[in-house]
Amino acid sequence: MKNKGLLIVLSGPSGAGKGTLCKELLNRENFWLSVSATTRTPRKGEVPGKSYYYLSKDEFKNRILNDDFLEYAEVYGNFYGTPKSSVIERLENGEDVILEIDIQGALKVKDNYPEGVFIFILPPSMEELKNRIIGRGSETAESLVTRFKAAYREINYVSKYNYAVINDTIDEAVIKIESIIAAERCRVDRIKDKILNSKEDLIHEQFND
Amino acid sequence: MKNKGLLIVLSGPSGAGKGTLCKELLNRENFWLSVSATTRTPRKGEVPGKSYYYLSKDEFKNRILNDDFLEYAEVYGNFYGTPKSSVIERLENGEDVILEIDIQGALKVKDNYPEGVFIFILPPSMEELKNRIIGRGSETAESLVTRFKAAYREINYVSKYNYAVINDTIDEAVIKIESIIAAERCRVDRIKDKILNSKEDLIHEQFND
Repeated sequence: MKNKGLLIVLSGPSGAGKGTLCKELLNRENFWLSVSATTRTPRKGEVPGKSYYYLSKDEFKNRILNDDFLEYAEVYGNFYGTPKSSVIERLENGEDVILEIDIQGALKVKDNYPEGVFIFILPPSMEELKNRIIGRGSETAESLVTRFKAAYREINYVSKYNYAVINDTIDEAVIKIESIIAAERCRVDRIKDKILNSKEDLIHEQFND
Repeated sequence: MKNKGLLIVLSGPSGAGKGTLCKELLNRENFWLSVSATTRTPRKGEVPGKSYYYLSKDEFKNRILNDDFLEYAEVYGNFYGTPKSSVIERLENGEDVILEIDIQGALKVKDNYPEGVFIFILPPSMEELKNRIIGRGSETAESLVTRFKAAYREINYVSKYNYAVINDTIDEAVIKIESIIAAERCRVDRIKDKILNSKEDLIHEQFND
């Protein structure tokens, strides 16, 4: 009897650094990164099936009707979503799947797949978040305040998650995420049936020696 | 605001090797090992306050009446128990406390302190458990079967625990336990208040620059 894989959802406010952590995790561990579907046109350099699955609006809407998204959203007239069937197939096959996603998306995934491991990535401090946003060099003073207020509100959603990891240094944060994954693999509610079944097998062997 | 320490409860059937794992963990990490109280007389080489706290039966019974045990049991006319106040004091002080205990004791601790981390140590297989029991050289064929049957029944209690760790090699099992502890320190239900409070502090700093 094979254990199901884990669906690991990395999420948090923008600027917390979840993308960097996700990349580093994929370098170090054998996870399958869930690829989103979108109706927007491919940009230069993007690879179909790796950057995104590119679907027509009709295809996307059909999939919505077929309940084939763990979550989806419409942003500026285009749809974006996490295809359910490909994720579930990997999980059933015992592979761990990682999903890097914003907070709204993560909460929808949680409704559809509550047994996922929901990890909220926090900036080390609001000070550091400000520095990171400034470092991008693309923000006016006004949009800086707007983004702070958004981050401020968004951090309240931490209570909907299983774990919170402060992204202080990448290495320490990745080690914490790896520990969370190792611990989740030992959770009794995930492996109980396997233990009790293998016990039955083994005890019969013992007494029939 | 300080985080509370974790109460880590290592438990499982005898022969699973929880004692060895506990010793190795104490070598590697800065935990405080909970010391039991007993009414039996000290044996040669035992150190009061380290091996056990030695209490008279009256003292022990008074402590029972004062609800000062996380668990206690009477075995062959002597009492054994885990003093509550000393454990709680360490936890409140932010120290992690480790408790190595049999299954009946662990379940009582869980009733009194459900926020503990309950880890069930499993032998790698019933075959290996048999070898370990035989290795002790103190079992007759009859008592071997009795101990197997006990282990067989006891393994069903795994479902009352949070985690199960198979004690295959000591090093791997200890790494799993360390991962569990690291993950539990990131659990949102343990650190939520601290995150939300520090967010308030930090956001005020930011906007008053």
